[in-house]
Amino acid sequence: MDIRKLKDLLKKVKLGKITLDKALSELKSLPFEDLGFTRIDHHRSLRKGFPEVIWGEGKSSGQILSIMKQLKRKGQNILITRLEEKKARGIQKVFPKSRFYPRSHVLTYLTHPIRSEGKGTILIMTAGTTDIPVAEEAAVTAQFMGNRVETLYDVGVAGIHRLLSERRKLETARVLVVVAGMEGALPSVVGGLVDRPVIAVPTSVGYGTSFGGITALLAMLNSCASGVAVVNIDNGFGAGYLASLINRL
Amino acid sequence: MDIRKLKDLLKKVKLGKITLDKALSELKSLPFEDLGFTRIDHHRSLRKGFPEVIWGEGKSSGQILSIMKQLKRKGQNILITRLEEKKARGIQKVFPKSRFYPRSHVLTYLTHPIRSEGKGTILIMTAGTTDIPVAEEAAVTAQFMGNRVETLYDVGVAGIHRLLSERRKLETARVLVVVAGMEGALPSVVGGLVDRPVIAVPTSVGYGTSFGGITALLAMLNSCASGVAVVNIDNGFGAGYLASLINRL
Amino acid sequence: MDIRKLKDLLKKVKLGKITLDKALSELKSLPFEDLGFTRIDHHRSLRKGFPEVIWGEGKSSGQILSIMKQLKRKGQNILITRLEEKKARGIQKVFPKSRFYPRSHVLTYLTHPIRSEGKGTILIMTAGTTDIPVAEEAAVTAQFMGNRVETLYDVGVAGIHRLLSERRKLETARVLVVVAGMEGALPSVVGGLVDRPVIAVPTSVGYGTSFGGITALLAMLNSCASGVAVVNIDNGFGAGYLASLINRL
Amino acid sequence: MDIRKLKDLLKKVKLGKITLDKALSELKSLPFEDLGFTRIDHHRSLRKGFPEVIWGEGKSSGQILSIMKQLKRKGQNILITRLEEKKARGIQKVFPKSRFYPRSHVLTYLTHPIRSEGKGTILIMTAGTTDIPVAEEAAVTAQFMGNRVETLYDVGVAGIHRLLSERRKLETARVLVVVAGMEGALPSVVGGLVDRPVIAVPTSVGYGTSFGGITALLAMLNSCASGVAVVNIDNGFGAGYLASLINRL
Amino acid sequence: MDIRKLKDLLKKVKLGKITLDKALSELKSLPFEDLGFTRIDHHRSLRKGFPEVIWGEGKSSGQILSIMKQLKRKGQNILITRLEEKKARGIQKVFPKSRFYPRSHVLTYLTHPIRSEGKGTILIMTAGTTDIPVAEEAAVTAQFMGNRVETLYDVGVAGIHRLLSERRKLETARVLVVVAGMEGALPSVVGGLVDRPVIAVPTSVGYGTSFGGITALLAMLNSCASGVAVVNIDNGFGAGYLASLINRL
Amino acid sequence: MDIRKLKDLLKKVKLGKITLDKALSELKSLPFEDLGFTRIDHHRSLRKGFPEVIWGEGKSSGQILSIMKQLKRKGQNILITRLEEKKARGIQKVFPKSRFYPRSHVLTYLTHPIRSEGKGTILIMTAGTTDIPVAEEAAVTAQFMGNRVETLYDVGVAGIHRLLSERRKLETARVLVVVAGMEGALPSVVGGLVDRPVIAVPTSVGYGTSFGGITALLAMLNSCASGVAVVNIDNGFGAGYLASLINRL
Amino acid sequence: MDIRKLKDLLKKVKLGKITLDKALSELKSLPFEDLGFTRIDHHRSLRKGFPEVIWGEGKSSGQILSIMKQLKRKGQNILITRLEEKKARGIQKVFPKSRFYPRSHVLTYLTHPIRSEGKGTILIMTAGTTDIPVAEEAAVTAQFMGNRVETLYDVGVAGIHRLLSERRKLETARVLVVVAGMEGALPSVVGGLVDRPVIAVPTSVGYGTSFGGITALLAMLNSCASGVAVVNIDNGFGAGYLASLINRL
Amino acid sequence: MDIRKLKDLLKKVKLGKITLDKALSELKSLPFEDLGFTRIDHHRSLRKGFPEVIWGEGKSSGQILSIMKQLKRKGQNILITRLEEKKARGIQKVFPKSRFYPRSHVLTYLTHPIRSEGKGTILIMTAGTTDIPVAEEAAVTAQFMGNRVETLYDVGVAGIHRLLSERRKLETARVLVVVAGMEGALPSVVGGLVDRPVIAVPTSVGYGTSFGGITALLAMLNSCASGVAVVNIDNGFGAGYLASLINRL
Repeated sequence: MDIRKLKDLLKKVKLGKITLDKALSELKSLPFEDLGFTRIDHHRSLRKGFPEVIWGEGKSSGQILSIMKQLKRKGQNILITRLEEKKARGIQKVFPKSRFYPRSHVLTYLTHPIRSEGKGTILIMTAGTTDIPVAEEAAVTAQFMGNRVETLYDVGVAGIHRLLSERRKLETARVLVVVAGMEGALPSVVGGLVDRPVIAVPTSVGYGTSFGGITALLAMLNSCASGVAVVNIDNGFGAGYLASLINRL
Repeated sequence: MDIRKLKDLLKKVKLGKITLDKALSELKSLPFEDLGFTRIDHHRSLRKGFPEVIWGEGKSSGQILSIMKQLKRKGQNILITRLEEKKARGIQKVFPKSRFYPRSHVLTYLTHPIRSEGKGTILIMTAGTTDIPVAEEAAVTAQFMGNRVETLYDVGVAGIHRLLSERRKLETARVLVVVAGMEGALPSVVGGLVDRPVIAVPTSVGYGTSFGGITALLAMLNSCASGVAVVNIDNGFGAGYLASLINRL
Repeated sequence: MDIRKLKDLLKKVKLGKITLDKALSELKSLPFEDLGFTRIDHHRSLRKGFPEVIWGEGKSSGQILSIMKQLKRKGQNILITRLEEKKARGIQKVFPKSRFYPRSHVLTYLTHPIRSEGKGTILIMTAGTTDIPVAEEAAVTAQFMGNRVETLYDVGVAGIHRLLSERRKLETARVLVVVAGMEGALPSVVGGLVDRPVIAVPTSVGYGTSFGGITALLAMLNSCASGVAVVNIDNGFGAGYLASLINRL
Repeated sequence: MDIRKLKDLLKKVKLGKITLDKALSELKSLPFEDLGFTRIDHHRSLRKGFPEVIWGEGKSSGQILSIMKQLKRKGQNILITRLEEKKARGIQKVFPKSRFYPRSHVLTYLTHPIRSEGKGTILIMTAGTTDIPVAEEAAVTAQFMGNRVETLYDVGVAGIHRLLSERRKLETARVLVVVAGMEGALPSVVGGLVDRPVIAVPTSVGYGTSFGGITALLAMLNSCASGVAVVNIDNGFGAGYLASLINRL
Repeated sequence: MDIRKLKDLLKKVKLGKITLDKALSELKSLPFEDLGFTRIDHHRSLRKGFPEVIWGEGKSSGQILSIMKQLKRKGQNILITRLEEKKARGIQKVFPKSRFYPRSHVLTYLTHPIRSEGKGTILIMTAGTTDIPVAEEAAVTAQFMGNRVETLYDVGVAGIHRLLSERRKLETARVLVVVAGMEGALPSVVGGLVDRPVIAVPTSVGYGTSFGGITALLAMLNSCASGVAVVNIDNGFGAGYLASLINRL
Repeated sequence: MDIRKLKDLLKKVKLGKITLDKALSELKSLPFEDLGFTRIDHHRSLRKGFPEVIWGEGKSSGQILSIMKQLKRKGQNILITRLEEKKARGIQKVFPKSRFYPRSHVLTYLTHPIRSEGKGTILIMTAGTTDIPVAEEAAVTAQFMGNRVETLYDVGVAGIHRLLSERRKLETARVLVVVAGMEGALPSVVGGLVDRPVIAVPTSVGYGTSFGGITALLAMLNSCASGVAVVNIDNGFGAGYLASLINRL
Repeated sequence: MDIRKLKDLLKKVKLGKITLDKALSELKSLPFEDLGFTRIDHHRSLRKGFPEVIWGEGKSSGQILSIMKQLKRKGQNILITRLEEKKARGIQKVFPKSRFYPRSHVLTYLTHPIRSEGKGTILIMTAGTTDIPVAEEAAVTAQFMGNRVETLYDVGVAGIHRLLSERRKLETARVLVVVAGMEGALPSVVGGLVDRPVIAVPTSVGYGTSFGGITALLAMLNSCASGVAVVNIDNGFGAGYLASLINRL
Repeated sequence: MDIRKLKDLLKKVKLGKITLDKALSELKSLPFEDLGFTRIDHHRSLRKGFPEVIWGEGKSSGQILSIMKQLKRKGQNILITRLEEKKARGIQKVFPKSRFYPRSHVLTYLTHPIRSEGKGTILIMTAGTTDIPVAEEAAVTAQFMGNRVETLYDVGVAGIHRLLSERRKLETARVLVVVAGMEGALPSVVGGLVDRPVIAVPTSVGYGTSFGGITALLAMLNSCASGVAVVNIDNGFGAGYLASLINRL
């Protein structure tokens, strides 16, 4: 809806030509612009506090560009996840100031500086080096949403002293995101060391009975430590998003 | 360890008869009292900020009473989960001021008033009436940990207007715990309505392909709404505990 | 069997050279023409009311063309599902009037105009944009079978007001097909809003624990709304077919 | 809400003391009576065309009686499913005109005669004799909702001539509900014989790898016959409800 | 072991230089020729009545050729299963009289004519056309082992009259192999029509919840018809082999 | 149908009062007697060569007795499986000559001597002693169907010499039924020792990851020995029945 | 076989009336005494170095007593696992010197003192207190087999300092058995701290998605620490047995 | 940390400039060199007795080379597993003395001769020829860790005499690694023949219901032979590593 339409509406309210309820209801139903293939919800940043995020998988470069242009026009910052490198390169030609993270397949484009929203530090940890791409998706998301992020990689439980030697970092974080594949034990150990919320992210790292992350997921759900909740396998974005919600409190 | 032993230790430090490191290390290793069957960790309330919680299942009344007496002597508040009614009745004879919640099988015993710790309200919701026992476990836990709790029961997605008519409650909560069995859709809808962390708790309510809560669990992990994390099936305690950690931030 | 053979048979009946039972029995056994690799059943359109549909997957272009020619000779309209674009292009050279839907991999070829069979409107909805290919398979099938079809895409439950703002469409449909992946919650919400049959179609959209659509399938089977039945994962054709059967009633 | 309250509201509308929207909105929000443990939705019979159904499992006799009394006061017919015989006997003392079906654990109570709603016959079939309780739940539900119901039991596919000898019944039904456990093949055969919607209900009958009905469920989802949709395992109620929705069209 | 070694052994027996037991024992241990990568057991055709069969998957052309040469030298007929077309073409250059079946990926090579071993006819049936490759593997195996084989393809249960119109074929077979994917119902129907052993072969045909043949497998294991046993998914060879064992009785 | 009715029918045929087809068709449709809860098929012993078998589970003593009386009147031998001891005792009061096997929960009642049908010996083996109940169900079934049965119990693969010391028994059997729980390896070893059909029966014996027989079932389906087919978990009856079908060839 | 038979055999050898091979072979086949329900293998203690162990589940007191008497006559020590307390009490009346462990349901009976076989200490650890029954089964087994056993209970990973404060015990053990339920993380941490073989035992402790120990099992199989192998869920006996085999090396 | 730094530290201890505790603690925290992507732990060879092993999968050639150079500088022998042939060839250009095993995708590089550590022979067996790659990974690992290794391939249970004819090899081994896919029965038979620890390795060999090794894994966990423990599917390295730990005892 363009501004004129909005003003007209408000005038009618003032003049009593329309009830407030009616006006409210119209406002509510207006913001869905139908691009033919997807509905962008511009009010979302008001309602939920964050801009719409684009899921890159299964969308063509053309579709993504068209959504990006819409969002840019509204002055919103843009985060795209699960974006193949090839598509990213095409997008960067049209949006040269966008930034692509090849390890985690995330692309960000800023129309305005990120406003600091988080009150403390979000610590993002991994058990192994192969878990890093998922961790980076979480880190980029959290930073994009205005948080200070620290990382601590490759501190899996088979070398428990590596983790313990970094205990200070753990203790100063306000929210922790713990990323692990294989037996998924790291969140349990971390959850026992801190008194802060721990968001566990299982990864599809492993082979044989790791079942693409299910083993890690189950281990995390059954954590003997309290204060741990779990997001979907490889869902770095979801963890970063939730950590941001918490860190704004 | 008794007080005398502790004083001796500190004296030695003062007098230089023992290095500080040594003293620290001794302090660290002391607090595990071996009751023969379980290790109680009295420092835990310092380290993690909350007292030890007793998992009632598989413990005899005698074992539970022995742990409770130990904890009472330390002046700690006590929360017992998964406690059969029959055992609870036995415990209440010894601890008549304890309070038992028969629906959720939780027992609390206070040695001192609960200190308010949470900054906002924790809203605990259920999709159906059969989800209430799990929700109550979450509610009692959160209250025990010093939080203001509100509840909103039986607002499942098949009657979406019931949920929408309570939208104010949703919007004023600081943390939300959403409990649902069957198809587990409620957290997705709630997650789309608020900009606060949502902790989803699948319950084992349902039959056939609900698989004792697995269907709800999977649905919650795959929520199309961001800002949702999941705890184990029927884990009301875990959800209440995590919500408390977040609400203290 | 050709017409001559059929006439001969009927003559024999008239002349009493063959009992009616015998004739009937011969009629029943005749229509299977063995093409070597598949049996086409020309009587099917009489018996079941719809022509045979060709499952394109695993059949060569040559095999499909040979079946199409047989069916065309009988004057039947043809619907081919799960057809790779490459094969479709080859078929279109021989049947230039055929129409191919690249998103849903369906091809239709009409030997005669579609007769209107459905009494009301079939509404086909999706939770996300990635569910559209399956929805389109349902839509093309239903149209091919003589139904008026409306669509409503990208109205997933995480933005519940999008769905509610289209409530009129829901209320005027006679049969609803609801397509969703991920947590598969949309049919539950829709089922709670209408008093018409809802056919739920899980899609293999998602990652991690979406398990190629199993999560959505389970959620739909466990819908807390009544009036919902489920077809196989990604089975847009099956949903469109069943919706057509219902809409003819 | 009682009648007086409703009248007052309408008066205010007439007198302009309240906008229509306000009135509407109040009307919408009123009908949820909070019984403490469950929300009854009296408008449901208007909105969805059917009265609320009570799920008996996990509710005490007291809870059920209290809901029944509420519903009776509104003049609604009552259907209770999954009701243990013992509870049913208690209820029948308070509601002596209620009828209990011990095989299917359903109880009905009529405050007014059932109005005929269905246009044709619903045929309910089973593969074996052990599937009959689930079939009966479907049959009672469909009759309660105003349908003419026929049944055809023990016509499983291992004795295919039993089924074929009843082909007339199949052909005259408007909607078919097919209940089967074990290998769940009956809906496929039936779906190939008729051109009407077939609702398949897997049952938990069987042992070993029948997995409490999962084998039958999977077989039904993968039916090679078109026109078949599936409800949850043992969900006779759901099948009867959906069949009723279809038969009213 | 070469002939000379064998003669020497027998001489020793004759001359009393070795006990018969010793000789027997040596004979028993000799026949394993170590080709470095696999052990061929030439006595097998005596002990089990059939020559060794080569599993082609995961073996290089070189390895297969080396085994074939060994077996040819012993005068044995050779059957190779799961052989990629490309490898087959290479093998046919060295063994030009070998015959390759591209649909079922089987290759046979005869050093002597096949001796008729089976007493009756083995009937091999499929539910659909996509099940034919597996059926052909069974058929070639059974023929290779000296059986008369008949086939009946595309007679799935959704068109039950197709099957019934071929009932004579069913009744004259001595052993039946029934191959089906999707819901795997055909063996149940066939098992109900005949009083002969039925070997059911699930195929990985289907999509969604067919789970690569598991649904068909489970349905077959839970067949309501007696006289049905099941082999592994897509195991046409195993079915043909077992049918041959039975048909020799 | 009684004899008189049958004679009348044949007379009509002779006199031309009814066509042969009609007569045949009547014959086909007559034999289903509806007992209200189950259909007994008296022609089955002609069509399939064996009398109907009663599945005892889920049937009341009254239902079973009523079926038995019907079958006795027809002069058929009766086999009841899955019969609780308590019910069996009740039945034996009415049918004192019936024989009950408490280990395998089978009851037999003979109205006429068993006719020898099998041509050779059926050998029934178990891996452990806990598998014996299932083996006995197979043995009783096979004997009831006119076969000579030998048994060989507790010869599991962890003591391979026990099995080998009984090799003669293996080699003289015409059909082998191999019953095993836990890792289900016995059929593979047996299948490698004989050149006769092996019917493998997984049992639900074991704990932990034996999953109620699924592990044994999977192992048997994946047997590296050829000539093995599998029936459902604990399905001793099915194995004995199939072995009988084979042994009659 | 009785002693006379054995002497006769040896005489024949001496006199050359039988070859040594023959004698050996007869000896090998003799020792299986058929008790009707189970085969006891007295040579086993020679061949495998340990006496036969009796699996108590599913055996009647009478059967167990009969086996015990046989074994006692041979002078063997006896270990019975999975023995219900009630049966144990009955056995203790006949064998008053036997010892029963009610937590782990193990019974031992010594006919001669246990000979020390193990070279070092076997350390048996648990994550929680509910894992102790399984650990005790392992401990009793290992002691019975002649090993020095130490235990360390309730040192789960959520309180990692408890484990670390006992590091000396870990470092002095020769073999470690680590018992854990829930997320099964303890073996990974232990495996990273020691350079000795670690045998991991998953337990069925937990609820929801612990799936009766499967989650712990999977976590252990996917341990990021090397040097860890796993036995079946709750298989304390197996772990104790294997640890004994290793400790004898 | 370089030597100079270490000396400085020790001097400070001697001179009392630092407490021993402090020194120890510094020593403990020093050895983690952060290469940016992974942490190498040089003390590991002291602490666990073996050098760090590199998991090749998911690491680039550049990353691997950088780790190798670090390790070479420390004078450690290097073992890389799961290394694609292409990467191996690149590494061999830089480390020409390294040795690559293409079947098992292992690469070794020696900076000093392997020291004999094992006390006896490790026997590595396979059921089939397709299991050999996994067996070779175990063999190379065990040899690299200083053990004498023997192999025995293709001795699966369907040809039990092949195995028995090699019984001497079995009886002289100190530790046995048994590798098998499909039904995974070999470890049970071997476990029954020897009184040594058996490490079972399931492989992903097979098709259909072998489920990529799960069937073999389950069979091994449920082995009726005692003394068997299991590692992850295809985890030859883990088995070789654990066998080495045991053989050093």
